[in-house]
Amino acid sequence: MKSHTAYLKIKTKKEKEIINISDKVKKIVSESEVMEGLCLVNSMHITSSVFINDEEEGLKEDFMEWLEKLAPVANYKHHKTGEKNGDAHLKTRFWSMGTDFLWRV
Amino acid sequence: MKSHTAYLKIKTKKEKEIINISDKVKKIVSESEVMEGLCLVNSMHITSSVFINDEEEGLKEDFMEWLEKLAPVANYKHHKTGEKNGDAHLKTRFWSMGTDFLWRV
Amino acid sequence: MKSHTAYLKIKTKKEKEIINISDKVKKIVSESEVMEGLCLVNSMHITSSVFINDEEEGLKEDFMEWLEKLAPVANYKHHKTGEKNGDAHLKTRFWSMGTDFLWRV
Repeated sequence: MKSHTAYLKIKTKKEKEIINISDKVKKIVSESEVMEGLCLVNSMHITSSVFINDEEEGLKEDFMEWLEKLAPVANYKHHKTGEKNGDAHLKTRFWSMGTDFLWRV
Repeated sequence: MKSHTAYLKIKTKKEKEIINISDKVKKIVSESEVMEGLCLVNSMHITSSVFINDEEEGLKEDFMEWLEKLAPVANYKHHKTGEKNGDAHLKTRFWSMGTDFLWRV
Repeated sequence: MKSHTAYLKIKTKKEKEIINISDKVKKIVSESEVMEGLCLVNSMHITSSVFINDEEEGLKEDFMEWLEKLAPVANYKHHKTGEKNGDAHLKTRFWSMGTDFLWRV
């Protein structure tokens, strides 16, 4: 069975950001020369995650505002460690750590 | 390695609905003649998703009411595009886009 | 293709509990002698789930308090069946039923 692994390094410009990696994933899948199989796209950071949705500006703002309402910036116990990203740990819960999808060519 | 892909077309009767597809998935798995492997069940729509839970009427009502509380019908920015389903984009966040499970026969 | 399945039986001491199974999963992966592939870690109970996060006491308390806020113990319709765990069915929605990750050795 053929397999292919690639790593994307992504730098955010803002503290919280949605970045479209569809084209990068498509390119990797194409380069893998796998014709049928599973593609696992996984974020290697606990406070980031991968999801599939419309590339629509309003919707992305809706997501960000909604996340802020349900998992707000606040004084979390986790901050006793010196970290300040307790809200981000909660926010990523709305997106699974990994997203996998099936493709056929 | 053997693989098998099948597509289910499902029509909802109401705007928001939970539909049990267990038997349909079982049938497809059985027809695939795969004896051991991974089964990926994935919803191809962004405002729908797949999850595993009890087939219990009260619980399904609880889910629907709870979703309405946490991701209510409202005037989302996404609606500037003409779409009216901003809440559905948020609601599906409580269910991953895909659900995969392992089976053994 | 090589595959390996193992089952972990885990007993909680409290009604709601976060248990670190990383070492157990690592051991199973090591014993499987699979050098490259996918590892699917799946909870076989509907009111429990698997997630990846920091092993940090404060963060775990944050998670538990946050879950209680968004999916509180309450009088759910599901309870008409005699069950009392309606909140747990909702709480697990913040963690997918299964978590899968890719490893390379």
